[in-house]
Amino acid sequence: MTAAASWPSVEGLAYGGDYNPEQWPRETWDEDMRLMREAGVNLVSVGIFSWAMLEPEEGRYDFAWMDDLLDLLHSHGIAADLGTPSVSPPAWFFHRYPDARVTDKNGTVMGFGGRGMASHAAPEYREAIARMAGALAERYGEHPAVVMWHIHNEYGVPIAEDFGPRAVVSWRRWLEERYGTLDGLNAAWGTAFWGQRYGAWEHVVAPAATATITNPAMKLDWARFTDDQLRECYVVERDAIRAHASQPITTNFMAHQAWNTDLWKWAELVDVVSDDHYLWSPDPDAHVGLALSADLTRSVAGGKPWILMEHSTSAVNWQGRNIAKRPGEMRRNALTHLGRGADAIMFFQWRASRSGAEKFHSAMLPHAGESSRVFREVVELGGHLKDAAEVRGSEVEAEVAVLYDWESLWAQDLEWRPSDDVQFRERMRTFYERLWRDGVTVDFAHPDQDLSRYKLVVAPASYLLTASSAANLTRYVEGGGTLLVNFFSAIVNENDAVHEGGFVAPLRDALGLTVEEFLPMREGDTAAVRWTRGAEVELPSDVWQDDIVLAGAEVVAENISGPGAGKPAITRNTHGEGVGWYVGTKLSVEALRTVVDAVYADAGIEVSGLPEDLEVVTRRGAAEDFVIAVNHGDDAARLPVAGKDLLSGAETDGELEVPGGGVAVIRTSRGTGGDGV
Amino acid sequence: MTAAASWPSVEGLAYGGDYNPEQWPRETWDEDMRLMREAGVNLVSVGIFSWAMLEPEEGRYDFAWMDDLLDLLHSHGIAADLGTPSVSPPAWFFHRYPDARVTDKNGTVMGFGGRGMASHAAPEYREAIARMAGALAERYGEHPAVVMWHIHNEYGVPIAEDFGPRAVVSWRRWLEERYGTLDGLNAAWGTAFWGQRYGAWEHVVAPAATATITNPAMKLDWARFTDDQLRECYVVERDAIRAHASQPITTNFMAHQAWNTDLWKWAELVDVVSDDHYLWSPDPDAHVGLALSADLTRSVAGGKPWILMEHSTSAVNWQGRNIAKRPGEMRRNALTHLGRGADAIMFFQWRASRSGAEKFHSAMLPHAGESSRVFREVVELGGHLKDAAEVRGSEVEAEVAVLYDWESLWAQDLEWRPSDDVQFRERMRTFYERLWRDGVTVDFAHPDQDLSRYKLVVAPASYLLTASSAANLTRYVEGGGTLLVNFFSAIVNENDAVHEGGFVAPLRDALGLTVEEFLPMREGDTAAVRWTRGAEVELPSDVWQDDIVLAGAEVVAENISGPGAGKPAITRNTHGEGVGWYVGTKLSVEALRTVVDAVYADAGIEVSGLPEDLEVVTRRGAAEDFVIAVNHGDDAARLPVAGKDLLSGAETDGELEVPGGGVAVIRTSRGTGGDGV
Amino acid sequence: MTAAASWPSVEGLAYGGDYNPEQWPRETWDEDMRLMREAGVNLVSVGIFSWAMLEPEEGRYDFAWMDDLLDLLHSHGIAADLGTPSVSPPAWFFHRYPDARVTDKNGTVMGFGGRGMASHAAPEYREAIARMAGALAERYGEHPAVVMWHIHNEYGVPIAEDFGPRAVVSWRRWLEERYGTLDGLNAAWGTAFWGQRYGAWEHVVAPAATATITNPAMKLDWARFTDDQLRECYVVERDAIRAHASQPITTNFMAHQAWNTDLWKWAELVDVVSDDHYLWSPDPDAHVGLALSADLTRSVAGGKPWILMEHSTSAVNWQGRNIAKRPGEMRRNALTHLGRGADAIMFFQWRASRSGAEKFHSAMLPHAGESSRVFREVVELGGHLKDAAEVRGSEVEAEVAVLYDWESLWAQDLEWRPSDDVQFRERMRTFYERLWRDGVTVDFAHPDQDLSRYKLVVAPASYLLTASSAANLTRYVEGGGTLLVNFFSAIVNENDAVHEGGFVAPLRDALGLTVEEFLPMREGDTAAVRWTRGAEVELPSDVWQDDIVLAGAEVVAENISGPGAGKPAITRNTHGEGVGWYVGTKLSVEALRTVVDAVYADAGIEVSGLPEDLEVVTRRGAAEDFVIAVNHGDDAARLPVAGKDLLSGAETDGELEVPGGGVAVIRTSRGTGGDGV
Repeated sequence: MTAAASWPSVEGLAYGGDYNPEQWPRETWDEDMRLMREAGVNLVSVGIFSWAMLEPEEGRYDFAWMDDLLDLLHSHGIAADLGTPSVSPPAWFFHRYPDARVTDKNGTVMGFGGRGMASHAAPEYREAIARMAGALAERYGEHPAVVMWHIHNEYGVPIAEDFGPRAVVSWRRWLEERYGTLDGLNAAWGTAFWGQRYGAWEHVVAPAATATITNPAMKLDWARFTDDQLRECYVVERDAIRAHASQPITTNFMAHQAWNTDLWKWAELVDVVSDDHYLWSPDPDAHVGLALSADLTRSVAGGKPWILMEHSTSAVNWQGRNIAKRPGEMRRNALTHLGRGADAIMFFQWRASRSGAEKFHSAMLPHAGESSRVFREVVELGGHLKDAAEVRGSEVEAEVAVLYDWESLWAQDLEWRPSDDVQFRERMRTFYERLWRDGVTVDFAHPDQDLSRYKLVVAPASYLLTASSAANLTRYVEGGGTLLVNFFSAIVNENDAVHEGGFVAPLRDALGLTVEEFLPMREGDTAAVRWTRGAEVELPSDVWQDDIVLAGAEVVAENISGPGAGKPAITRNTHGEGVGWYVGTKLSVEALRTVVDAVYADAGIEVSGLPEDLEVVTRRGAAEDFVIAVNHGDDAARLPVAGKDLLSGAETDGELEVPGGGVAVIRTSRGTGGDGV
Repeated sequence: MTAAASWPSVEGLAYGGDYNPEQWPRETWDEDMRLMREAGVNLVSVGIFSWAMLEPEEGRYDFAWMDDLLDLLHSHGIAADLGTPSVSPPAWFFHRYPDARVTDKNGTVMGFGGRGMASHAAPEYREAIARMAGALAERYGEHPAVVMWHIHNEYGVPIAEDFGPRAVVSWRRWLEERYGTLDGLNAAWGTAFWGQRYGAWEHVVAPAATATITNPAMKLDWARFTDDQLRECYVVERDAIRAHASQPITTNFMAHQAWNTDLWKWAELVDVVSDDHYLWSPDPDAHVGLALSADLTRSVAGGKPWILMEHSTSAVNWQGRNIAKRPGEMRRNALTHLGRGADAIMFFQWRASRSGAEKFHSAMLPHAGESSRVFREVVELGGHLKDAAEVRGSEVEAEVAVLYDWESLWAQDLEWRPSDDVQFRERMRTFYERLWRDGVTVDFAHPDQDLSRYKLVVAPASYLLTASSAANLTRYVEGGGTLLVNFFSAIVNENDAVHEGGFVAPLRDALGLTVEEFLPMREGDTAAVRWTRGAEVELPSDVWQDDIVLAGAEVVAENISGPGAGKPAITRNTHGEGVGWYVGTKLSVEALRTVVDAVYADAGIEVSGLPEDLEVVTRRGAAEDFVIAVNHGDDAARLPVAGKDLLSGAETDGELEVPGGGVAVIRTSRGTGGDGV
Repeated sequence: MTAAASWPSVEGLAYGGDYNPEQWPRETWDEDMRLMREAGVNLVSVGIFSWAMLEPEEGRYDFAWMDDLLDLLHSHGIAADLGTPSVSPPAWFFHRYPDARVTDKNGTVMGFGGRGMASHAAPEYREAIARMAGALAERYGEHPAVVMWHIHNEYGVPIAEDFGPRAVVSWRRWLEERYGTLDGLNAAWGTAFWGQRYGAWEHVVAPAATATITNPAMKLDWARFTDDQLRECYVVERDAIRAHASQPITTNFMAHQAWNTDLWKWAELVDVVSDDHYLWSPDPDAHVGLALSADLTRSVAGGKPWILMEHSTSAVNWQGRNIAKRPGEMRRNALTHLGRGADAIMFFQWRASRSGAEKFHSAMLPHAGESSRVFREVVELGGHLKDAAEVRGSEVEAEVAVLYDWESLWAQDLEWRPSDDVQFRERMRTFYERLWRDGVTVDFAHPDQDLSRYKLVVAPASYLLTASSAANLTRYVEGGGTLLVNFFSAIVNENDAVHEGGFVAPLRDALGLTVEEFLPMREGDTAAVRWTRGAEVELPSDVWQDDIVLAGAEVVAENISGPGAGKPAITRNTHGEGVGWYVGTKLSVEALRTVVDAVYADAGIEVSGLPEDLEVVTRRGAAEDFVIAVNHGDDAARLPVAGKDLLSGAETDGELEVPGGGVAVIRTSRGTGGDGV
């Protein structure tokens, strides 16, 4: 087969959703075609959960209904993203291969009846998915409706870890490959502690239930192993498809919403990056988390356009209180994705299911049918995407990088950390939200990658930072970069071992300090810092303080209460051509404003001064720019920009009023709408 | 054997409790007889946990002590309700038949040492209980002390579900009987969703641990199956007894306190309904829940007198904080049961156990002995019941029915509902409490039953409402009835599938609306509605709003804040000769007052205007009525009634003062004390 | 071997910590020696987790590194407390003997990877630890560095209970030995309740998962059995060592921080008592809990000096928020231990581990190295201990005993108690803290022991109090003692059976009352009592009230609100020559002040009147006393004392000013610093 394209063959921006017509009688399919056309749908994902329909008995395939479906779609000009059904093996599979079921850490075997999770380590499973993917590709590799392949679904969800017998065999083999010798493993895991030295590979078990906490380096490797098992299964399917088909292959990520997959590694294996995103209902500013996910998705995609494979038209069904989207909210969400690089806007799912676990999940066509508010907005959004088709292929450029490393997340999530109140996710969101509110567009970056093109690099949660990563950051500062590091960073190496020299030692040169001791605070306790650079201001803090040992850094704020009262809280260090900032206490989005204003000044970043609720991102096209504006506030906001709003058709020569809750996509000459504005 | 009587042969009202003398030396039994006589006890339940005493080894019976006990009781004029001990098989049983133990959904096997729960699906268990029940009936079927049979104890408590191997075999057979074909099962369960289609019966497993949530229709059937297994075991014992004995047979329910048994079905199988009830300590108004349970018990009994088989003289022992009853509280509780149809007032248990799990449970004879407050009140209550003996056989009549369907409860309790804050139990209690505070006596009704005799039907929580039930309700309205429906009703059919036409569609005619979308609110958020029928008033609301699509209904209140601000909140619809009300947001007991006042007016229901804490119920005798008054308040209350208080002997010719905390049972001429007064 | 000494052969006060050099390269060991000398370290614990190093394969020993280590220590004048590694069997052990793993109550088997907990009932384990301990003793019994043996580590931590097959076999044997006959067992467990009668020993299972709660007497015996299993394993090792070595043998307790070991029994088996203690971070007054643990440790040691085997220089790592000690806090903690009888001050651990589960646990030598605050304070503390060496061997004398019985704790912790808010630990801490704040030094005592030497005996939580213990307390009062008993005491006997005669009946004579009924309060409810002895004062109360039946006692306070309003709350009874006080409601540390002031007056106890935060304890030497003062407050405090502060060298002739946060050890003539002052 020839090399795959990096984008499915669909005209303009793609629009559609998961389509599972096997849940309805055939006559409903025709209604679906009519309404899809009305909504402007040009791409649907099919077959994702269809294994039991496609292979009702082991080795006996039934493709007739899929033939029919693909032909029907094609005849209506709708392209298909064809799923492989490996996420949900049929009942017969688990009956026949009970050892291919997942076992949890307490020894409970996960049975059939939900979404049929299989052990990704099981050879029986790998053989079965290869056979199924190959059969699909052989049959549909040339089908004119099929423009993309969608392997599996949300790897790692609902669960990734398997502690069963198949996994243990794979685990030992994986460790032998990683370490070569037991001495290597014993050293990496620090097994001298608590007397855990291994004398034979077969003595190594999975980190399942233990009487007290399990060796953390072992658990960190287990997280890597688990991710690797998933990726190996992806490759099995990818190769089986590629033998027969040349369309681009993807699998849908859940960036910053699921945690077991290292998307830097995954993104290398797909032809085009796709992502699912759902608002987190308890969060009234969930659209900020949405933007974070979108930027992270674009970043793992190397800045190239990506596919929003799933989001929801309104409420989901699996949260404690499933908040419906208000009128206009779906459009705002979709436009944020578009603005941050998505060239396909897709939903789960086309038609709401009457039965099953997700019947209360919203859909493009809800239970209330086509006369509903939701369907009217779906049709409207389809029109918008048609109007904005020329955005396709343009890219987002950022001056700021935020470090994001799944290995550090995994390590920080292990047990027995200094404080339960210090969490990767919270810190990542807080720093991101500060930048988002300031209108500063960011990329996410791995700490090992070349950072020289960024004016500012932010490390909100780099607990695990290898010596080589630290050296990379130090070089970045030396070369003139501005680095902002939050506390509890640069603590351990790749084996979760404390760095030689103590906490933060690998960044000693860049930051001009080390940390002698952590000073976490009791639950609910608060403190404050006095900022003294420029104006003197007091900022509230909580959760954490550090006992900082200065090694050249200048103190720009000190703790005025708390266990570290009188000690440095925030520092600034010039190193080489650049500057290294360190924040040694927990600051809120609001309190961080004072800090980042000073950091922006060092980095030469100008902020727009627009209202915080007016989200503005620029996509850079071949010749012109596209400014996407999303107004999350209730009041109209004025955006300085010149050009044409592709949605309304209005021309503006200096300022556009975006109504409360409204959106705009302005084609503008290069330079009149810059990054962040 | 001849058909059983519907009431045990005891004179007057029955009074007594569980009696487990095997826990004490023989000399204590004589003291028990003396004190029972002093207290007016005329009925005790014996043998409920006595299997290990009656059959110390498999097949070897020891009836000597039971012979002795029954003779002793009889010689003191105390009747026996003879239990079968099937709730607690002996240690030897589980040692011999380990597969007859219960397995939980995570695969943990429940061992011996608590209350020896057995797998109700296990043939070994069914054979053993049939043998034991038969042996008891053969020996004691003619014993003059034995006036009733008490099978098992609180079916479904402490656990009902069993996921073990015996259950899985039964489950497949049960499904085959229910559905006939796999196509039927696949359709009912909607297995097309998430690829769960079954191709063979033996592929179906129990809905035990799965990686994510399990098919809800499967789980709903599992609840039905579980209940059916319990009922099959009951029938096994009943038939074994009936072969040798003619006394009425019962088993003690736990109406609205245990949830695995569909009491509409159970009530058909017993000769007389009996119920256990315990106050829920955290609830300062637990007596309202007590009244609810009593009305529900009477309702499943078809309005006929029933047996309060267990309640407590004071604190229980299994709650977090076991609140002792205050002086007079036991009497109030007992009189509420009497007022709502109980002709037998029994306790768990006669004498407090010194050992074991329930030694801190109160008893008629507490650890402190006969010189205690509790025993004095027990003696006093015995006297009251003797004085009120003529109440026996009278019945309660109600103008209002509240819909109560265990299948709907089971379905609503499944996972992934729109909001965790919407609960069957809370809604049932809130609507009931509104009616209770208004002095409106209610029956509970199944939504399929003939409702035409009621002026008002209330549906607080009818999430699962079949098309035929909905048609029944619609006919009820057409015929002139008043129907009050709370939100999240008429959502799914018997397979937990969303109704065609969308939410509330089956009640579209009766209510004059459907619901396009649910608008649940974030945890803790509040809103309000503006009521505009008659006076304009603002009512607080929370948790839920609906996006209502009117189809003829009149809006009587709209949301003035929250996600549905400006939309209809409460509606009224005339249909045929009747009226259908709909409440589309969550209102408290207090806020509901405005609504029900208008509803009462439509239904022609007059409320008494008595103080809310003065509980008044009328039992209709053959010639005269009995007004039972229970004053839960601290202040005396005046009750307009003429007649004689059977407890105090006082005659009243128009108004009776019931002291704070006091009670009265007034014999009155028909009509001077009506329903609700 | 000759009988062991009762103290390790170390000069002066011992100082040091756990030393696990196998985690570092050999060159680090030399640095360790240098720094230990600098810090004044004279004793280290080695080998505690070294099984996998000492016996890398079953039966093949590697002692070379331990030879090297002990020689190195000896050459630097540092003594060794040589551990047996039985707490952490190697991976090969569990691979070879899978049935020697621990099973939890739900059937989950605890695997390798944490701290390798083994089944203490497993014969394979017992053989292996005997062999290993014997091999160590044979090789090092004569080594000049070895001055003590340290068996295992913190028995019962992380878990004590094992429900696996090996344990069940032992359990049946243990029960047969305890009860002789099944009739005995059935009577003790009250198996007549809930039909639990056993007809054969092999029918008895472990109290693992059951459908509802398990027989409480069975569970209480299970706690005794579990403790006995641990103790049997200790004896196996002790005997194996004693065959070859004569140094004192210990195992490190966790008094009042771990709960599965009855330290009254354990203390009889060790040559010298040692204890580990860690501050509980959420408690801002954790130093009070520290003092409690120290007093309890000294008490189980029979008043003799003991070893603080582990505490921390700063934060631990296993709590939710691991609070670092502030400057001076480590010294205060160490001095409190010293003041309350510890003649050895040791830490976990010498050098912070770079890897593993406890890398964030502080150490004498932290990650930041020797230039850190912590190491400086370690060096300072070493100097203090050298200066105060003459304190060694002196003893603490107390006029007050607090009853502490692990069996009562175990029984009270069982399920289904009257109120979840009544907890052994809370009541023990509250009463202890009252006495601590009053400067009253206490011993802890078992309720069976001779109490006649105490002026006051306090029973904060004697739920289980045998008839003979109650008789002992009654004799104590008769003989002139003052007894203060908190509610929910003297409720059950050794089988968790309610005493004949009802609650508190065994103390009826001593207290002049019984309790007819418990009146626990709803969560969060509060009440008050009116105290009327001397001044009239109102004290807040909550959680609990009693329905007291007076039998001679005088009411000194009554409840003025709550369920027991108007009833006695606090009583005083003269019996024989003494006085019995009873507190029938839950009072706080502050509210108890009024009560204990009156009790002190009865008992003839004078309180110092010093500031509550100034902790003062006196150790009585052969000729002189040593007053140890620890100022937990921020302000300086004046202590009336004459003598020489061994730490500062200052002489004082009547009053010493102890700075805020400071400490002092004053050698004083007998009588000038008395008990509590």
